[in-house]
Amino acid sequence: MGNRKTFELEFHCHGRASGKMRNDISVHWPGMGESFELATDEGPLHGGDGTAPPPLALFSAALAGCLMTQIRAFARRMRVPLQGVEVRARLRWRAEQEGAGPYVSAPGGFELDIELDSAAPIENQISLVQAAQKGCFIEQCLAPGVILGHRLRHGSDWINV
Amino acid sequence: MGNRKTFELEFHCHGRASGKMRNDISVHWPGMGESFELATDEGPLHGGDGTAPPPLALFSAALAGCLMTQIRAFARRMRVPLQGVEVRARLRWRAEQEGAGPYVSAPGGFELDIELDSAAPIENQISLVQAAQKGCFIEQCLAPGVILGHRLRHGSDWINV
Repeated sequence: MGNRKTFELEFHCHGRASGKMRNDISVHWPGMGESFELATDEGPLHGGDGTAPPPLALFSAALAGCLMTQIRAFARRMRVPLQGVEVRARLRWRAEQEGAGPYVSAPGGFELDIELDSAAPIENQISLVQAAQKGCFIEQCLAPGVILGHRLRHGSDWINV
Repeated sequence: MGNRKTFELEFHCHGRASGKMRNDISVHWPGMGESFELATDEGPLHGGDGTAPPPLALFSAALAGCLMTQIRAFARRMRVPLQGVEVRARLRWRAEQEGAGPYVSAPGGFELDIELDSAAPIENQISLVQAAQKGCFIEQCLAPGVILGHRLRHGSDWINV
């Protein structure tokens, strides 16, 4: 295997409230010298103008995208042939509120269904998904129990991974 | 105060690997009938084409944007006058790797600095930020200890909230 090494990643962001509920957010990745201009907003029903996706849409895409990126990056390292990846995810939250006061929110669980287009034996596909979960920077931030499960498609079945 | 009520939120997403490292991700918010087309990619150094932000940039913006949205939404409910909100955040991760194998990642801590443009007494501003943390759907998913701290600007000082 070779020697053990560690590396660090750091992202900085600077958000400014702009429209009624819009936030303009500059994200900077100092290690790569890259910057990204992003924004969030809410639809009219929540007092916004719908000029950008709500924060939870960015979060949902970040979670699915991070896992898919790890799957593809690790497929090469683990020599798992891979033609395609699809992920479907369901993310649930609940919130409790007294009267019209501020609410308290809690995760209700996230489920991720993964389909790999791969000629590799299913055991190797399972190992790849397990490695991707451990490598996924977002999954590793979540409290235990928030991810309810990963399922991997195998023919017409789903395997819990 | 009035009576206690609960509500639920659910987001669905469907991601498809498209370019070398690009993922096209449709996010659907069934409760609101809204859909958002998002994408992630990696820069050339990580084998991508840089056509979209990396997943961690979306995640960073989602976290800052969610907290800022809660602060603005709750300011009205808590009757805290608020002209502006700025948030600066630093998010750190680390990863360990044996040789060229897949790495295992872990959060290294997130710090959020908040500046409110408000004529409200600092005690009310602190209460607002504390309520926003409890309401923030993303913060509430994170493992204890991932958020290292929230600091609120007060004149030339920073108050730990």
